[in-house]
Amino acid sequence: MDYLVATNVVHSQPQELLANLIIIYFASKVGAELAFHLKQPPVLGELAAGLVVGVSCLQWINPDQPILKLLAQVGVILLLFETGLESNIQSLIKVGFQAIGVALTGMIVPFIFGYAVMKWMGYPELTSIFAAACMTVTSMGFTAKVLTELGYLNRLEGNIVLAAAILDDILGVVILSVISSLGKGTSLNYLNLLGIIGTSIGFLVGGIVVGNLLMPLFIRLVRLLHTRGELLTASLIFCFSFTYLAEQLGSAAIIGAFVAGLVLATTDKRDEVESRLHPVTDFFLPVFFIIVGAEINLALLGNQQVLILSVGLTLAAVIGKAICGYAAFKTQANKLAVGMGMVARGEVGLVFATIGLGTGVLTKTVHFAVVVMVIFTTFLGPLLLSFILKRQQLSESDS
Amino acid sequence: MDYLVATNVVHSQPQELLANLIIIYFASKVGAELAFHLKQPPVLGELAAGLVVGVSCLQWINPDQPILKLLAQVGVILLLFETGLESNIQSLIKVGFQAIGVALTGMIVPFIFGYAVMKWMGYPELTSIFAAACMTVTSMGFTAKVLTELGYLNRLEGNIVLAAAILDDILGVVILSVISSLGKGTSLNYLNLLGIIGTSIGFLVGGIVVGNLLMPLFIRLVRLLHTRGELLTASLIFCFSFTYLAEQLGSAAIIGAFVAGLVLATTDKRDEVESRLHPVTDFFLPVFFIIVGAEINLALLGNQQVLILSVGLTLAAVIGKAICGYAAFKTQANKLAVGMGMVARGEVGLVFATIGLGTGVLTKTVHFAVVVMVIFTTFLGPLLLSFILKRQQLSESDS
Repeated sequence: MDYLVATNVVHSQPQELLANLIIIYFASKVGAELAFHLKQPPVLGELAAGLVVGVSCLQWINPDQPILKLLAQVGVILLLFETGLESNIQSLIKVGFQAIGVALTGMIVPFIFGYAVMKWMGYPELTSIFAAACMTVTSMGFTAKVLTELGYLNRLEGNIVLAAAILDDILGVVILSVISSLGKGTSLNYLNLLGIIGTSIGFLVGGIVVGNLLMPLFIRLVRLLHTRGELLTASLIFCFSFTYLAEQLGSAAIIGAFVAGLVLATTDKRDEVESRLHPVTDFFLPVFFIIVGAEINLALLGNQQVLILSVGLTLAAVIGKAICGYAAFKTQANKLAVGMGMVARGEVGLVFATIGLGTGVLTKTVHFAVVVMVIFTTFLGPLLLSFILKRQQLSESDS
Repeated sequence: MDYLVATNVVHSQPQELLANLIIIYFASKVGAELAFHLKQPPVLGELAAGLVVGVSCLQWINPDQPILKLLAQVGVILLLFETGLESNIQSLIKVGFQAIGVALTGMIVPFIFGYAVMKWMGYPELTSIFAAACMTVTSMGFTAKVLTELGYLNRLEGNIVLAAAILDDILGVVILSVISSLGKGTSLNYLNLLGIIGTSIGFLVGGIVVGNLLMPLFIRLVRLLHTRGELLTASLIFCFSFTYLAEQLGSAAIIGAFVAGLVLATTDKRDEVESRLHPVTDFFLPVFFIIVGAEINLALLGNQQVLILSVGLTLAAVIGKAICGYAAFKTQANKLAVGMGMVARGEVGLVFATIGLGTGVLTKTVHFAVVVMVIFTTFLGPLLLSFILKRQQLSESDS
């Protein structure tokens, strides 16, 4: 009988996985293309598609399957690795002070607003802190895409927003490590807090320093390899080692992946690694977006409390980021546009929410409201940004 | 408690998986590079590396983990899809008759040899028949990899071996159903037998016909897509659908993946699909090769009877398949190379052996000897094949 089970593992499980992947890929492409034609970020369409095939509607995908969760996790790790690869430490330093002001304001204000909404609704301390932390992030991907499409990437607004978003990504992983260890039951102790912040910043700085020292050796090693897939496999070993180490040292797994990408981005192999990595990310990442959508139970919106919380968090999230643009006070930049460039929470917000649910700090209700906030900010941010920038372009062409 | 389980899935499992992948990638690259420098097919080095990190030596990798088996299965499916993409239907059909001769001879001769060895060692009828049946299969995966690595996939030898291996896979499914029902005590029913053969051949022919009809629609659809990863995702949906369907219809999963690749190969998107697919295959396939090596337990060779039986079955397996190459009598192909291309039993042989043990037809001793035969043929087949092909290349460059 044992062997029948073994045969089962060899035969049936791939069948089940294949069926799931077929549905996931199909849904994700249909959703992404529909969003594209509606001039929306594709990821919004993928989320919506996940909602359709998930627990709320068709129930074709059971998002609680361990294998799907695992593939989704690998997708997130690869996404953060890619984000690191596409970031540039130099350009971040150049825009400097303005960006730091925008990034910090853009984290503190939404955190306070979010915390206030949670407390006003009567939620406990830890849950409120975690939900508020989910408000602080910015999705670089969406922002960069909108700026590029409107020709603003290399203008003043674009530079500040992009630099602030990169800073936000870095600070975001620090915050993630803090709230993750809070979720694991570590009590809110200022010594612990400092320790976690120290570990994360230490890993970030140490990782970049050690990574940069290792880079010449890494590149020299890769040049020695001759067999197929040498660059991708070496990059994956590098990324997974940093990811593993980050979590083992008490930081967040994704900070490791991000640092690995940031370090590899300084080499001349950057473009090559990116082009090899893209298809692999494309294999895993749709699983993440569809799963997140599939987990949403729309029936929860019937609950009045959930509805109020969702609207409250979304308003706090939009207004909080809108304000942060005015921290760029020393420039001629359109401050409202800078703020709107920071509104979209995107995939980073979803990663936060998923970890909050996984560690049990967020209840299903709060998780749902946070996901609603993420979806609406991701939807509204690019929409409002393009509206403001287009109005500015019109007034510029008038004068 | 539910959340603790969820946390476990979200946090610990990725850590464990990452640690496994780091070891697998590292071992596979070291093995592949060593093999390359010894002028051997890299896949042999990967197998040897699997042996080193597996149960026989370091025990760093536990090959029985379901997640690794699943990733390995995906790797085999992608490999067969790639093999199909790199193959040419026309030249495969051209060698059709030769391939039928090679496939049939390659099943009958090893069966007789295996049966003789078993009887000579004094084993009962049913056990002997089952062990002999395990000798008849061919592993397309390993053979395809070696042929590709040596640039022989689209030469005469490669075409014959590939076509014969496909036929062998089809007949293998038939034999598997037959011996399974023999093990369960069902008598040999010719109507069932014909049904199984018909299904597999029907899928092969029907899949190619239907696939070719669907291709213009598929390409037109892909051209309409705008979002990132459109071609890869569409190709994966196509491949996985064929794979799923093949198994559901009672054929072998890998035949589905191969047919999907064969059909996509006829379009102008072939090169683009291949370049996107390579990195994804490079992610999954090392898991398969390392796992196969890691499963080998060399300690069992200490028992004398096991040793003799293992050596006997291995010799019968190698010589039996070597002879089948000479059934390709009407060609200029290197007949010994064709035979050697059929030697590797690979994953198919292991499935057979597992079922034999499960139904109780094979004793643990015989099961081990069969597994040793599978492993050694998988090792020796590609080794001898590359040896023969290289000698041929040398003599060709001399003349």
